[in-house]
Order: sequence, then structure tokens, then C-alpha cells
Amino acid sequence: MSTYTAPLADMRFILNDVFDAPRFWQSQEALAHVDMDTVDMILEEMAKLSKNVLLPINQSGDEEGAVYQGDGVVSTPKGFKEAYQAYAEAGWIGLGGNPEYGGQGMPKMVTMLTEEMLFTTNQSFALYPNLTVGAALCLNSAASEAQKQKYLENMYAGIWSGTMCLTEPHAGTDLGIIKTKAVPNDDGSYQITGTKIFITGGEHDLSENIIHLVLAKTPNAPEGSKGISLFIVPKFLVNDDGSLGARNQLAAGAIEHKMGIKASATCVMNFDGATGWMIGEENTGLASMFIMMNYERVTMGLQGLGGTELAYQNAARYAVERAQGRSDTQIQSPEAPADAIIHHADVRRMLLNAKANAEASRCFAMYVAKQLDTEKFSADAEAAQTAATRVALLTPIAKAFLTDKALEATVDCQQVFGGHGYIREWGMEQIVRDTRIAQIYEGANGIQALDLLGRKVVRNEGKYMLAFVEEIRDYVASMQSTHAIKEATLRAATRIAELTHTVVDNSKAQPSDVNGCAVDYMHAAGYLCYAYMFAMMVEAAHDKTGDFYTHKAKLADYFVARILPRLEAHAAMVEAGSAVIMDFAVPYFDESAL
Amino acid sequence: MSTYTAPLADMRFILNDVFDAPRFWQSQEALAHVDMDTVDMILEEMAKLSKNVLLPINQSGDEEGAVYQGDGVVSTPKGFKEAYQAYAEAGWIGLGGNPEYGGQGMPKMVTMLTEEMLFTTNQSFALYPNLTVGAALCLNSAASEAQKQKYLENMYAGIWSGTMCLTEPHAGTDLGIIKTKAVPNDDGSYQITGTKIFITGGEHDLSENIIHLVLAKTPNAPEGSKGISLFIVPKFLVNDDGSLGARNQLAAGAIEHKMGIKASATCVMNFDGATGWMIGEENTGLASMFIMMNYERVTMGLQGLGGTELAYQNAARYAVERAQGRSDTQIQSPEAPADAIIHHADVRRMLLNAKANAEASRCFAMYVAKQLDTEKFSADAEAAQTAATRVALLTPIAKAFLTDKALEATVDCQQVFGGHGYIREWGMEQIVRDTRIAQIYEGANGIQALDLLGRKVVRNEGKYMLAFVEEIRDYVASMQSTHAIKEATLRAATRIAELTHTVVDNSKAQPSDVNGCAVDYMHAAGYLCYAYMFAMMVEAAHDKTGDFYTHKAKLADYFVARILPRLEAHAAMVEAGSAVIMDFAVPYFDESAL
Repeated sequence: MSTYTAPLADMRFILNDVFDAPRFWQSQEALAHVDMDTVDMILEEMAKLSKNVLLPINQSGDEEGAVYQGDGVVSTPKGFKEAYQAYAEAGWIGLGGNPEYGGQGMPKMVTMLTEEMLFTTNQSFALYPNLTVGAALCLNSAASEAQKQKYLENMYAGIWSGTMCLTEPHAGTDLGIIKTKAVPNDDGSYQITGTKIFITGGEHDLSENIIHLVLAKTPNAPEGSKGISLFIVPKFLVNDDGSLGARNQLAAGAIEHKMGIKASATCVMNFDGATGWMIGEENTGLASMFIMMNYERVTMGLQGLGGTELAYQNAARYAVERAQGRSDTQIQSPEAPADAIIHHADVRRMLLNAKANAEASRCFAMYVAKQLDTEKFSADAEAAQTAATRVALLTPIAKAFLTDKALEATVDCQQVFGGHGYIREWGMEQIVRDTRIAQIYEGANGIQALDLLGRKVVRNEGKYMLAFVEEIRDYVASMQSTHAIKEATLRAATRIAELTHTVVDNSKAQPSDVNGCAVDYMHAAGYLCYAYMFAMMVEAAHDKTGDFYTHKAKLADYFVARILPRLEAHAAMVEAGSAVIMDFAVPYFDESAL
Repeated sequence: MSTYTAPLADMRFILNDVFDAPRFWQSQEALAHVDMDTVDMILEEMAKLSKNVLLPINQSGDEEGAVYQGDGVVSTPKGFKEAYQAYAEAGWIGLGGNPEYGGQGMPKMVTMLTEEMLFTTNQSFALYPNLTVGAALCLNSAASEAQKQKYLENMYAGIWSGTMCLTEPHAGTDLGIIKTKAVPNDDGSYQITGTKIFITGGEHDLSENIIHLVLAKTPNAPEGSKGISLFIVPKFLVNDDGSLGARNQLAAGAIEHKMGIKASATCVMNFDGATGWMIGEENTGLASMFIMMNYERVTMGLQGLGGTELAYQNAARYAVERAQGRSDTQIQSPEAPADAIIHHADVRRMLLNAKANAEASRCFAMYVAKQLDTEKFSADAEAAQTAATRVALLTPIAKAFLTDKALEATVDCQQVFGGHGYIREWGMEQIVRDTRIAQIYEGANGIQALDLLGRKVVRNEGKYMLAFVEEIRDYVASMQSTHAIKEATLRAATRIAELTHTVVDNSKAQPSDVNGCAVDYMHAAGYLCYAYMFAMMVEAAHDKTGDFYTHKAKLADYFVARILPRLEAHAAMVEAGSAVIMDFAVPYFDESAL
């Protein structure tokens, strides 16, 4: 029942007016091939594909789900094969890939927009190509030339797909304690043995081969995360001429039954002495994985944005059409027994929350994408280095804050439907269920917050954050617009600078403050990021005429008045510290001790 | 996979130490029959029944769901019939019923605790007896003596069940526009024709008869909510001797497929000239319904509490058992590869959020229950009148705030499980899905908030709220404890008093502020209510020794430091008003206008 029209005007506004992407691309030699005409075509094609091919199988995919057929065979729901074929053949999987191996070399600033549309229309489907993109990214950055030549082209073409095999039953967040073993063979390959769980796309019927990237420990590897290596373990061995050889000793043992993203096959993968090849040096597996993860984590933020966008569009449509009660202020449809619920301010509040989140998160994802592209493509070493510090600082926010706000937004939009929001037929509850996963996987949001406050803030005494605050202050000082967002952003920046000093100090006396205040710090910082984004959008719109541009200012008004005050609550909770948390002894939580 | 131990110690603490229930009962002639020994036995029996009979069929009930078998037949999942039989035979449905017709006359202060356990262990199951209790309550307060004699005893005994048939496809929140017709027959009965949707327990296989209470319009009834009457429309007509007669002209046409509470049959009910009997006077149907609704709405708050309690207990157990990573401050289990996640402050934060919400919401539900009992049973007219104003003011908070906080708590507890929280097998995602409905039905939370701010605050210029604030101030002034909650509660009370004046004034100039600020006002007021409850719990505990009591003070410390600061954010958003919302014209939200 869901409908969707890709918000191309908003996307172009952000690309052109807010971030001046064409000039950025022209200024970087490595991106000089990117031009707005091509990008426009890309956006329009994905808008069509996502609306016409992916959205129609979103709800049916949820109802049918991926199915474990036994004997290691997993089938995807009706229509997924054909959609995957169309998607792969149009070259979407290689859109951001390395041109040396058949990729199209588009920057993240472009691929993030196509990823948004993909996640908006079909979160389950999105994961199949997305994992391939991630695995290819990892290979491109860490694998040998021979390995790249062997695997990348077919992966970019979607003929083969990819996975990341990290988690084990006893080791989710804590990868240091994985047990999967990699024993060297005489020919330089390894025998991989172990069980991996939660493997997205671990098995399915969409591609001819599946290239698993597997974390494992070699014999005598150091304990913990310093002793982990990364391996290529294909489902079918690949012959030197690129043709498929024997079936490898690995198989899906089951798939999980989940709250949502039911059409995405989440597999238990058993490796029984499977043949694998090491990527990069021994014991550098985690580092290789994390290169990719910075990209993936922004993408999970885009999943949140996608859920929000689909939920918003459908809730807004419903609110305009559904008549219940009368407007408080004056009757709107005297000829009808009731007014449309869009006239109720509380309904609008829920819609505007979602809309503000969608626009701010899209803008923020673009900001981070620009930093990623600068880090990766810039010839200016200093600019690249500054961008790298922004990426390090902001990636956990892009993942965790965007997905936390996305759950809130999808729940609000579901609420607009009243009882119908709870009924599967209407599609809203699926968006909530699907979007929920983005807060959990790819590093649970609490872990992201800890990465932010622990590694990216406290460890360097707030240096990265204070530099970012300075950038914001400079930007605000340079604004031509006199909109209230200017003052509000400055105030928020000052508050976060103060808070950063406070938490750095506090954590010296009370080390548990890092862990115990991380999520609230992340939320406080997230609201500052959103304020900065609204400032940029307002500034980009302020000298232009037309509803589209005045709406940017109005939405920023809404943000300042009705969303930004939450920053202060989170800041106050950070300042209150973690002593009140650690004051409880473990048995308090132990039901068996009752 | 879920486990549960009823929190009887907490329940007794609230009954005895916080609210001194035995003295309250002894002081009311109409409640003098209630004694703590009986109540203890009731609580212990329900603790056993809920744990041993209802919890074991909670997850299987979700997986199997209620099924529409065609031809108007609906079956409940395996085990539901036997559980219902046990539940009904033990007299639970009549626990709060009128003793003149076979009920046990227990006050809400007792039934709220049994309802909590029921909702904790099986939200779907809970709805079947709960709707009967609601319908019986309505009959008891509005029906004729003959009608009561005919129906109540069998309903209290669970031999017959009850429903409330309000919603129609085009009329959810707005009951004034229902279309179901009631045409008088010559014998004083009516012919009822129309379609009702979202009818909980509209059809099932648990009871011998189903007594539908149906809102309908008589010919020439006034338009809108003033022209609605209420009818008894039994599935099987009841002969004068109480035996079952002919099948009535009504049937379930379908059941809904929902996000959660899947074992609860949510029916489309078709009335095709069914025979019904009017309850009370013509055109007073809504008033009769609303007598019951005040009770039901508190019960929906208990559904939220139930979800929170089950989620908390299971997440706490998981956190104590699951080992991942190392404590930030010092290694806790040097012999093991990792420490239990309970040592991570962020995990505790999520658990403490849930625990604080559970304890505050239980206490608040008891506070409201005491007001309901005072209103209903007190011989002191002034006390009853004061209680009635508290009930009016606080019922929307008890419904909406408790269920909003419950979604947050269940999501937090699901998050504690990491990826496992998303897997159906673990039971956590079901709690989130089930609990979500409580924010939607029985008056969506936005409507509750509007009832609070519009009818209960602005319409009387804040009188009820300011009187409640005075009560809180008086209480705090009388406290012996010097705990930080004292000062914090006073500050919160002052803030809400200010805010109430502000919003009353603002809404004169900007009428849309009532609708547009209602939810944030409700949340701000909700945090004040919770602060008051923690103050009472701290005071009741302060002169007692032992971990149980010191934990009450520690949890209040946590509440003051890490939850209460949110009040200010909501207050600031109320003060910011609704102009920023109404500033958008309708086409902004209208996708088709893009």
C-alpha cells in the first residue's frame, strides 16, 4: 500500500545549493570525471527503479520472507531474483567501485543518494547489494592485486555477491574472543573452521557465487583483537580463468526468524574446513574490516533515513486524506462530516518531526560523505587529514543518531495512522520493524556512542570535537542569513564545547562516565550536527525565492522551537554523570538473587 | 524463552508502605471487607497463574496467532482455551465486579496489580478477560436492573465474554460520525445494522456467548456525539431463564493481521439487523462508555507497565549472564575471556531506565487507582469530589505517558540483547510489538494528551493541575527524608505550575497551542508525576533498613540525575508554541501537490 516519490528536489538542493558538489568535484583531480548531468541521470534512474521495481516487492517480501529450504539452500521471496537481476545489470552495485576493476568510481556523495532510495523502498532487498559493496570495498582497500583481479569485477557486476562474517554465537560486539580457526595449507591457502551467525546474505538464490569475508584466528595468533586475520572464502572456488570450480566446505545451517527485514536472509554459516585465502597481513583483519566499516556505518544511517522518508511520505498522504474530527480553530470542510487530520496540530507535529529528521539526516549524511570523499580523493594532504578527523568523529553519530531518530520518526508516522498503523496491510508497522535493526547491527548504537565519547572525544581530550565546533562557529559567523537558526546553532555549539570539557574532566575522576554518558553525549552532539545542517540549508535557501526555499526556513524554525531543546536535556544528563548508575551492585540486577 | 517472577515485594511495598492501603480500606465503609491477608493471597495466586499458565503460551500464541477459519469462526491459539477456563473458574474476571451480581468487589488498588501480572505475562490473552471486565463495568454503571441480572453473573464468571464495539471504518477517534443504525422494534428492542472494526475479542472460541456493547444511532438522532446510543447485542440471544436462545444476526467478517498482540482476535464485526437492547437513555451512549473508559485507560497504562516489567526482568537476566568485552574500570572475571555486560554502564543505563519507569508507573497507577476507589467508594462527598478531579486530570497521563515510556523501555531492553533482541526466538521483539498497541488504542496518545491539556487544563484555567501541584508541594513539605528527590520534585512542581499558566495564556492568543503542545505538556506533567511517586517511595523507605529500601533511594537518585532533566526539554517545547507548526499550508504535506 506504500507509495513513494524520490525527493529529487531535496537531493539536488543539498548537492548543489548546500554543498556545491560540482565545484567540489571539479576541484579534485580524482573526481573531475563526475559531472552533474551524469549524476542527475543516475538519480533519476534510481528514482524510477526504486519506485517501480523495489517498492512493489517490499511488503510481499516481508510477508513471504526468506526461507531456509534445508540442505543449505535459501530462497528469497517472489520477485527478488528478477529485481536483483535488473539492479545488477544496470550496474548499480559497481556505482562507487574502483574503475580499474569495472567500477564506475562515483563518490560517496552520489552513492549515498542512491543508497537512500534503495533503503527507502526496500530495506531487505537493499542489504544484498549493500553487503557486496562493503565486501568489495574491503577487498579494494586491503586485498592483493591478484585477489582484486579475481573477485572485484564479478562482484561489481553483481554476478557474485559478498558477505562479512564477523559475529559468532558467543562473540557479537566483542570480536576479540572469536573462535573460528584458520589453519595454513601447504599451498598458501587456509582451512577455515567455525560457526558464524547473523550473516546477512550468507546464502540466497540471487547470484552465482558468494564471496565470504571471514574473520578467523591463525594458530598461535595473539589473544584478543590483535590476533584476528581476514580471509576470502568463496562459496564456489574460483579457477584461475575466473570460472567456478568446486563447492567449498561451507553452508548455511539455518536462517534467523526476525522482527523485520524478513526478506533479507540472516544466516548461520558453518565453515567445515573451507578453503580460504588471507587478505593482507596476518593479524590485521580487524583493521581491514574497519576501513570498510566507516563507509558501512554511514550507510546504516541512510537506512534510518530511508525508513523515515517512506514513513513520512505515506503518513503525510494519509493525514491529508483521512477525515476525523474538526480543526480546533475553524471548520475546514463544512461540506464533509469531518476535517482532514492534517489540520490537527499534533498530527503535523509528528509529521514535522519526521520531515525535519529526514532533511537534517540527509544533509548530515552528505556532509559526512563529502568528508569521506575528501579523505579518499583529495590531493591536498592537510585537507584529507582534517577530513579524516571529521570522519572519525562523526561516523558514530551518522550511524547511531540517525538510526535512533529514525525509529522515533517511523513510530510517529505510524501513530498518524491510528489503529490502521498497527495493521500489516497498511505497511507502516513494517517500516518500524525494518528500521529497528539499524540501531542494532553494524555496531549497536551504544557501542557507536562509546566509540564517539571514548575514542573520538575523551582519548584526545576533545580535540576533534572542539575543532568541529570551531568550524561550526566560523560557518555561522560567515552566514548572510539572519534566521533564528544562526543564534541557536551558535548556542548549541557553545554548549557542546562546554560539555566536552566537562565530560573530559569528569571522566578522569569517574572513568565509568565514558560508558555511562556516551549515549546522551551522542544525542546532544547529534542535535548540534542537525542544527549545523539546518543552518547550512537555511543559508543556501535564503537568497532564493519560491515556496521550496521558504519552506527550508520554516522547517528550521520548527527545528529550533520544537526539536533542539532536547539537546539541553541530554547535556544535563551527561553532566549528572554515572555515579548514580555504578552505585548499584550487580545482584540488584540479578533476578536469580531475588 | 522469557522468564518472570512477579514483583510481589514491590507491589506490597507500594500497597502497604507507600499508600497504606489497609488503613484506607478500613476507613471506607464500602471497602471494609478488604483485608491484606486476602489481598496477599490474591496476589500470590495471580503470581502463580500468570507465571505458570499465561507466560508459557505467550510466545506460542504470537507465532500461531488467532485465526479466522471462515464463516464467522475465529479460533484462538493452542492452550488459550484451557488457560481461559482456568482463569475464569478461579474467579479472576469478577474480582472487581459488583458483589450483588456475583463479583468479588475488590477495589482497583487490588485489581490493578492482578491486571499488571496478566499484562506482563500475556498481553494478547489479557485482552479477552479485560474487555469483559470493561463491558461488565459499563453494564453495572449504566444498565437497568433487569439487564444487570441477565448478564453480569455469567460475565463475571467468564461463561460469557464482552466487547466494546465503537470504531467504524471511517470513524476511529471521531465517534460522532458513526453510521451504525438502531431501528426500534415493537417489543422495545432494536434492529442494529452496521460494520464495526478493531473489535477486540469480537469473536473467539473461549466463551459460550459474547455480549457486544454497540454504539449506534437511532433514527432522527441528533448529529455528532450527542446522538449516540449504546446497545447490548449478544451473539446468542438470552432467554428469560438465562439459557441461550437463537443466534443473533451478527458475525465476524474477518480478523486483522497486526504488528503484535497476534493471539488477540481483532475483528471486523458485521451487524445485519441484529437484535439489541438499549442501555440507559437514548443518546447517552457516549457518556455510558466513558464511565468505563476512565477505568480502561488506567488499565492500558498497566499494559505498558507489564511490557516494561517483562522486558526488564529478561534483559537484566541476560545482562548478568552474557559476557562481552571487559569492564571499563577493572576486569571482573579474569578467569573468563570476557566480563558480563552488566558491568558496562551503558547497559545498566538502559536497564535502570526501564526499572525506574516500571517502579514509577506502578506507583502512579496505584495513586490513580486510589483516587478511582475514593471517587467510587468514599462516603465523604468532598473527598470523592477531589478524587474525581484527580482522576479526570491524571487518567490521560496514566494512559499515554505510561505507554509512551513503556515503548521506550521495551526498546531499551531489546537493545540490551544486541542482535539477539531482533530474533523472534528470544521473545524481546514480541514485547516491543505487543506493547506498541497500547499507545494507539483506547484513545491514541495524542488524543489523551489533548484531553489533558484541552479539557482538563485549559478549559478550567489550570485549576485541576494547580490543585494537584499544591498537593505535591504539601506532600514534599511534610517529608521526613532529605533525599535529593525532595528538592527535585519541588522544582518540577514549580515548573509545571509556571508552564500551566503559560500555556493557558498562550492558548488564548494561539488556540492551536492546545493541540500542538499537548503531547509535550503531557510528557512534562508525566515526569512531575513520576518525581512525586519517587518522593513517596523514598519517604516510605527512608526509615527502614535493608537493601530493598536503600535501593528505592538509589533508584530515585538515578531518576533525578538521568531521567528528570527531560521535563525541561518538553516544557521548553511547549513554551515555543505551535506557530511554527501552523505556519505550513496544507499543500506542504500533500505529496500529490509536489
